[in-house]
Amino acid sequence: MSARETRPETDTDAPSAGASSPRGGLDRSAAQTLTDQIASQFTEHIRQRLLAPGAKLPSVRECARRQGVSPHTVVAAYDQLLAQGLVEARRQRGFFVREQRQSAQPHAAAAVASVPPVDATALIRGMFHGLSDKPAPGLGTLPADWLDLPMLASALRRVLAQGDPMISLQYGHPAGDRRLREALCVKLADFGVRAQAAQIITATGATHALDIISRTLLKPGDAVLVDEPAWAVEYARLTQLGVRLLPVPRGADGPDLTVMATLAREHQPRMYVTVPVLHNPTGGSLNLSTAHQILKLAEQHDFWLVEDDTYAHLAPAHLPRMAALDGLQRTLYVSGFSKILTPSWRVGYLAVPERLVERLVDTKLLSTLTTPAVLEQAVAICLEQGSLRRHAERVTTRLDAARHRTVQLAQQHGCRFVTPPQGLFGWVETGVNTEVMAQLMHDEGWLLAPGHLFHATRRTGTLMRINFATSQDARFWRDFDRLRASVR
Amino acid sequence: MSARETRPETDTDAPSAGASSPRGGLDRSAAQTLTDQIASQFTEHIRQRLLAPGAKLPSVRECARRQGVSPHTVVAAYDQLLAQGLVEARRQRGFFVREQRQSAQPHAAAAVASVPPVDATALIRGMFHGLSDKPAPGLGTLPADWLDLPMLASALRRVLAQGDPMISLQYGHPAGDRRLREALCVKLADFGVRAQAAQIITATGATHALDIISRTLLKPGDAVLVDEPAWAVEYARLTQLGVRLLPVPRGADGPDLTVMATLAREHQPRMYVTVPVLHNPTGGSLNLSTAHQILKLAEQHDFWLVEDDTYAHLAPAHLPRMAALDGLQRTLYVSGFSKILTPSWRVGYLAVPERLVERLVDTKLLSTLTTPAVLEQAVAICLEQGSLRRHAERVTTRLDAARHRTVQLAQQHGCRFVTPPQGLFGWVETGVNTEVMAQLMHDEGWLLAPGHLFHATRRTGTLMRINFATSQDARFWRDFDRLRASVR
Repeated sequence: MSARETRPETDTDAPSAGASSPRGGLDRSAAQTLTDQIASQFTEHIRQRLLAPGAKLPSVRECARRQGVSPHTVVAAYDQLLAQGLVEARRQRGFFVREQRQSAQPHAAAAVASVPPVDATALIRGMFHGLSDKPAPGLGTLPADWLDLPMLASALRRVLAQGDPMISLQYGHPAGDRRLREALCVKLADFGVRAQAAQIITATGATHALDIISRTLLKPGDAVLVDEPAWAVEYARLTQLGVRLLPVPRGADGPDLTVMATLAREHQPRMYVTVPVLHNPTGGSLNLSTAHQILKLAEQHDFWLVEDDTYAHLAPAHLPRMAALDGLQRTLYVSGFSKILTPSWRVGYLAVPERLVERLVDTKLLSTLTTPAVLEQAVAICLEQGSLRRHAERVTTRLDAARHRTVQLAQQHGCRFVTPPQGLFGWVETGVNTEVMAQLMHDEGWLLAPGHLFHATRRTGTLMRINFATSQDARFWRDFDRLRASVR
Repeated sequence: MSARETRPETDTDAPSAGASSPRGGLDRSAAQTLTDQIASQFTEHIRQRLLAPGAKLPSVRECARRQGVSPHTVVAAYDQLLAQGLVEARRQRGFFVREQRQSAQPHAAAAVASVPPVDATALIRGMFHGLSDKPAPGLGTLPADWLDLPMLASALRRVLAQGDPMISLQYGHPAGDRRLREALCVKLADFGVRAQAAQIITATGATHALDIISRTLLKPGDAVLVDEPAWAVEYARLTQLGVRLLPVPRGADGPDLTVMATLAREHQPRMYVTVPVLHNPTGGSLNLSTAHQILKLAEQHDFWLVEDDTYAHLAPAHLPRMAALDGLQRTLYVSGFSKILTPSWRVGYLAVPERLVERLVDTKLLSTLTTPAVLEQAVAICLEQGSLRRHAERVTTRLDAARHRTVQLAQQHGCRFVTPPQGLFGWVETGVNTEVMAQLMHDEGWLLAPGHLFHATRRTGTLMRINFATSQDARFWRDFDRLRASVR
């Protein structure tokens, strides 16, 4: 039985032991021996997948130097990890994290579908738990203090004041709240996307919208074009569905069209999933010509386009959307409000070709029945009253200033932007292994988003994604510099 | 291209044309010919799956008699349906609804996974849309006027008044709101289920909880034991996952253990999914001995038990739960608040063996990331303050009176209860084809839940499920009697 199987969930919002104790987190006055402490620290990192299967542990000498202990102590700790089956020794090469195996007890557990490769778990847990009280440069959303809680609370109070039992006491329309769907049609028109309310389906966040699409249109063995780099949760979900990923290199202006054409010809993909605007992690947006070329490829090779416009509210409205070019014929448009209103409400939606509506609604029914109308109406109020638009304007102005400051800091500390800094995320060349850096920074309470979380296949690298809103703290860059020196 | 493919969603909350125009819905002063009106009516019924694929249309003579038109008019209408490919003629036998085929335009659509067999769509749409202003005997929930909107609004306002950005502005804990999970541990102890907060995962309603379980523990080709009769949405979801259903006849005290033992021996099922208490549609609950025997079978044949306790709040606490007997070792317990607080908020949860927590949370992350903490905290407040318990007591008292009255009415109108009337639902022998009755009653604005919606395999029958809270109206039973006479 692997550690992952037997260990209870760490069910606390407190930062991990390491996070509050800098310099490797060893406590010489503790009841636990130094060996046990080092072993526990690695166990925790492996469990949180900060050290993923296949990752190499530091050499005994290097670990001893970092922790300020004797090599014997480290050897004893690594022996513990070996005995627990968490790592394996490879002759002449060192210690590596083992692949996690399924439990065989009880036997039924051995037959479960394989665990999705959510390599992103550490980042996700950081995003959700709050690692420490420091700003989180690896965060995927705006920090809470950039959001407008009074606006949200006021909209929700208005819905409650209406006291409408249709909204609060019934399942609600399977496609989602009518008022929100109508407000979204108006919003989509800003991007040139013409949709009827009947083409809109609400979901429990954009993630659910993407999940509904995949479950409806894909079957195991299908090939799907994806951007690389891109957010690993999308790779993980598609992989869990038994789909073959066809990664297309994503540059500042969009995917590499030559690679995409070759893959389309050779693999007959069913779908291309992409973030058209303020792409995560590169910050780039499709230009008009690329959008047009993608559509032509999709028509030629007959695949669906899934346009994940999660960052819509942080971008200028004039950036091209494939759903606008295409008139929602073979494009399924997905967006939500996690990156502008709040991630907590989980309000997202799809705008889709008319002929797919019923099938997608059926999948929604099978997965969650309906979605909470009370939250959807509150979002509709924010849209109708223009308060969302004014809030978005304030946020983008503030983000521009934050980006300016962060870019300067990053460059002063020897980082280079791979793509032009835009939107919420910067894609940064650090010159060091960011997986190792993420682990070291984690122990000091900083959440990092190392580049390997944005790749479809396991690879270690020197890139990382930073959030411009949360990377303005000079302390972060100083700590980064200091630890980088220890890694080099 | 089938009608299902080409037809836009009817995106209105208004009842269908037929619902507002009794006696078949024909309007002799309308611009549309009688033939067109009859054809439209059947088209609508087929689209809403009130007439499912394979269902037989009434004979030309019978239809002419019912509608008060000449047989020629009916023949012309049936010809239209034939031309549209909606029905097929079988020699000497009559007209039958055709299987719906996938569209082949664009080609990608032809490759989509097959549409799940949501035969329950008509019922679901009725539940969600509100067919008319009449009470809905086929409803699956308590009617809105039985619920306590002020209690819900007050709890939600309290959460907003706290203004906690952790609750309103962040993703929230992947397993769900901590406060709700702790309140649920206390609640579960009432049933003898001992769970830690770390074993509880919240979901977007019990449906989502069941979906998370299936996606985590099953793979295509696996066999799953299910009760029959049972709610068709569960069959549909399992079928969509590519799972083989093994239906076990469900009686008043639980499943047929002999059949279950045989199926377990022959098919090595991975799982048994059941509603232990106030089973939908029979109203029956497991007795202690049956629960014990099921657990023994599960241990012997090594399958998971999924206990869907959706009706928990309407039942006496002493009824046995397998999760209590088993100590949450191989039982996954599912429940929610749709049947007692409101279906609109979509708050449900799982209590599961510790070793499954991480894997199930991963699936939740891939499907919706997190769930809305603001609604979960409001439910927690209702639990903590005892307002949910007091509300449940009021509801069950009222339900007892409604059941008493409904049982009398049903029996006076020649219906017989197959299982002893208990809880929310009655399982009723009507003596006539309830699929036909559902169609006729639908045209008069009454929502019926015919027995075929509770079967894993297509079968027409004479049973129906009634909701005791919404079947107290003598008009319903009079209309039922009258139309039944026309069918016999």
